[in-house]
Amino acid sequence: MKFGVVIFPSKKLQDLVNSYRKRYDPHYSLIPPHLTLKNSFEATEEDAKDVANKLLQIAQNTHPFSLKTSKISSFQPVNNVIYFKVDPTEELTNLHSEINQTFSDSPLEYAFVPHITIGQKLSNDEHSDVFGSLRMTKIDHEETIDRFHLLYQLENGSWTVYETFRLGKEQEK
Amino acid sequence: MKFGVVIFPSKKLQDLVNSYRKRYDPHYSLIPPHLTLKNSFEATEEDAKDVANKLLQIAQNTHPFSLKTSKISSFQPVNNVIYFKVDPTEELTNLHSEINQTFSDSPLEYAFVPHITIGQKLSNDEHSDVFGSLRMTKIDHEETIDRFHLLYQLENGSWTVYETFRLGKEQEK
Repeated sequence: MKFGVVIFPSKKLQDLVNSYRKRYDPHYSLIPPHLTLKNSFEATEEDAKDVANKLLQIAQNTHPFSLKTSKISSFQPVNNVIYFKVDPTEELTNLHSEINQTFSDSPLEYAFVPHITIGQKLSNDEHSDVFGSLRMTKIDHEETIDRFHLLYQLENGSWTVYETFRLGKEQEK
Repeated sequence: MKFGVVIFPSKKLQDLVNSYRKRYDPHYSLIPPHLTLKNSFEATEEDAKDVANKLLQIAQNTHPFSLKTSKISSFQPVNNVIYFKVDPTEELTNLHSEINQTFSDSPLEYAFVPHITIGQKLSNDEHSDVFGSLRMTKIDHEETIDRFHLLYQLENGSWTVYETFRLGKEQEK
């Protein structure tokens, strides 16, 4: 089955993101608004515990950090994904590398551009209409991220959370 | 904002449940298949950490337990909800009471009937058609539950996981 690792931002930011996704993202009903830390990968249900234990270690060695987003960007011409650009802070970039290095033998083949998708699978015309009207939108949002999530995908394409990992060691016992 | 506490069963059982929900449950796209431990309740985003810490304590004092389902039932005439009936084991009933007692001053006003909804908001005619054709369906499923989840609801009605709680004390540090 397929697993993935994501950050769900605050309800406030998720509600804002969903106001765009509702119209522009066919994955709107399959998963809440998120920032992807690791793209979907294959593992068995039995592997999940082991994966979770490794993620728990990483989480405990990472401090809560600030997530800031201030503009809407697009991956065009690579693909027609429109997104809230998230500032690539050192903490976020390190968390992304640690997770990906832990679960892969080969180096990552792409640069990490932290983002929260608001539109995808748009035709070229739709993309240019939508992005044209959104590209100048100013966003001014900052929040603290103190957790991330391991998810798995159901047969209908939707995602369920397997486990949450709080950042830092201050978990109550 | 609204919070709730649920168990997500295994992918296998979720996929089976979704094969019914797809047709009979208008909440199909808002939340994955689940067994509700605590109905939705109001709390602030700031309260969430405190709620989570209390749930963590409860989880650590609960052992993983078996979840068994063998038939399809309905809450009619109270309401037209059709569900997989889950055997009310002592562990599950205790977990339910502990969670509800922790977050409520008054005693629960309803009996706990553990279930996983497969259909709801059906008209009386739909209900009798659907339940008529499903009531004799035999289900033979048993699995181990080792975690539960605290969720919150977004403005569009969908639910995001705030945190997962593994049962028992054997969490790796």
